[in-house]
Amino acid sequence: MSDLRYDVLAIGNAIVDVMAPCEDAQIAALGMQRGAMTLVDAARARELYAAMGPAREISGGSSANTLAGLAALGNACAFVGQVADDQLGEVFAHDIRAAGIDYATAPRPGEPPTARCLIFVSPDGQRTMNTFLGATSFLPEAALDEGAIRAAGVLYCEGYLWDSEEPRAAIRRAIRIAREAGRKVAFTLSDAFVIDRHGDDFRAMIEAGDIDILFANAGELAALTGTADFAAGSAQLAPKLPVLVTTHGAEGASAHAHGQHASVPAEPVDHVLDTTGAGDLFAAGFLSGHVAGRDLTTCLTMGAICAAEVIGHYGARPEADLAELVKARLG
Amino acid sequence: MSDLRYDVLAIGNAIVDVMAPCEDAQIAALGMQRGAMTLVDAARARELYAAMGPAREISGGSSANTLAGLAALGNACAFVGQVADDQLGEVFAHDIRAAGIDYATAPRPGEPPTARCLIFVSPDGQRTMNTFLGATSFLPEAALDEGAIRAAGVLYCEGYLWDSEEPRAAIRRAIRIAREAGRKVAFTLSDAFVIDRHGDDFRAMIEAGDIDILFANAGELAALTGTADFAAGSAQLAPKLPVLVTTHGAEGASAHAHGQHASVPAEPVDHVLDTTGAGDLFAAGFLSGHVAGRDLTTCLTMGAICAAEVIGHYGARPEADLAELVKARLG
Repeated sequence: MSDLRYDVLAIGNAIVDVMAPCEDAQIAALGMQRGAMTLVDAARARELYAAMGPAREISGGSSANTLAGLAALGNACAFVGQVADDQLGEVFAHDIRAAGIDYATAPRPGEPPTARCLIFVSPDGQRTMNTFLGATSFLPEAALDEGAIRAAGVLYCEGYLWDSEEPRAAIRRAIRIAREAGRKVAFTLSDAFVIDRHGDDFRAMIEAGDIDILFANAGELAALTGTADFAAGSAQLAPKLPVLVTTHGAEGASAHAHGQHASVPAEPVDHVLDTTGAGDLFAAGFLSGHVAGRDLTTCLTMGAICAAEVIGHYGARPEADLAELVKARLG
Repeated sequence: MSDLRYDVLAIGNAIVDVMAPCEDAQIAALGMQRGAMTLVDAARARELYAAMGPAREISGGSSANTLAGLAALGNACAFVGQVADDQLGEVFAHDIRAAGIDYATAPRPGEPPTARCLIFVSPDGQRTMNTFLGATSFLPEAALDEGAIRAAGVLYCEGYLWDSEEPRAAIRRAIRIAREAGRKVAFTLSDAFVIDRHGDDFRAMIEAGDIDILFANAGELAALTGTADFAAGSAQLAPKLPVLVTTHGAEGASAHAHGQHASVPAEPVDHVLDTTGAGDLFAAGFLSGHVAGRDLTTCLTMGAICAAEVIGHYGARPEADLAELVKARLG
């Protein structure tokens, strides 16, 4: 590993989350799909923001959240993602660098502004996300630092990026660079609706052997495999991937890797306040264990510990000392 | 009261708080004064922001926080304060309106940007604030709506505004309008260092009978009266004011009003996470009781309930249903 500068380099949407509590009736009244991530244009974003209660702004973005978890666990990380040259872009860049993550993507001048995700948090902690992609849609291939990708043990990519043409091209090129350098490629399916839009691409990448580690939750697994049966979907997909990690919310998580299989229950949480980032932080814990060569059950447990931390507070970035939590739980 | 549109109209700094946890050693290393509010220029703000950990942005501003508490208690409120025409200005305007508060001050085009306060939160919950005033320094007298001031039972002003010339002129004019209309003027001293800079002005206003309700914490009382003895300071000041409210952190709060005196202990808090806004929310609870004509002990208890809520989470705006908390505690 001595020639590796990073444990994980991630490419993802650079988003600031705008979060407010809500009642489920408001979700319905505003015509939102509870629990989903919906892309919105500027007009719809304005409409939803006007209807939103007093909010707080916290940096987000799925794979950026995962890196924040990895960095908190002591892993060396780099992020590639596009912000605009505006105040929310400054906020995003500050927060990711302050987490100890290398971030060199230059802000994009002019319109559109930095991406934001309007997140309505229901009383049970479920989050309903409305993403205005803005500048993050324009991540150019030129933002890739080939040397950095080659110097990262794992390239981590989010399915969310598939919704915009330029980032999709960038990520395909990043995957080629990583594979040619003999690095692992990890991929999160992100959202069942993303799979509705781009499932053929994802299935083709899996068939081509481009993905080493795949993260899927129950809804995404169903959308990708076409079967609602969690066990059957996992069994169908597992032979095609070196590592398949499947999460099942409060019911726990499983992994299939090189013919082995392990499952863990969810870690206990006093009070689920906001589930935003649960999957992102699960991926962080799992990957941190994986790059350290820990056994499958330990990797899953590390994922569960990180997910449990992030759903106990508002925001998808960790607040507690994750390394300390893992040490206390696993020694 | 039938000709009154508002229970309280407040004039204050329009600020977005940028908050991150820190260790006390970092406070010292950065040359900050723990627990104080320090004004910083753009260069120092950049330096401190670069040194700050991953943060979250939550609307703040002392008297705006107080109004958020009053609105949560069911009071009709209006706010006057200056933001710039930028993203943080949009955040501030959204959050105050979403709290149900009338806010009509037009954003100021161009530089400087909307005010921000970089808040370092120590492990014991103490907050150390560094305010870049930006646009809020330029609140013009023209932003005052005379009719709205006349239509508010209480005009609430913050000492923090004294640090900039234009807002100081605006607030003096607002006080004249309110007094001529027979409305009450409430004033918070804001910070001991503000009194070091502007105490003569504040003492003159008190002597002139321009202030009906004064809010002071222990440090501010000492700075204003020149005596560190809390009881002696209160006794010296009380005869000059119809209502004097003094807060003493975890030791509770007192009020002197028209020859009467009452004290309450602080309300219990499970875990003090962030003391930002404690005084602001105490003022909210007290004023809400006061405008409803409740007795002094009840007003103080309402203040203590609201302060206890806000120090249990990050941010200076209430998250829980304050009206429900007061009802549960007081019936």
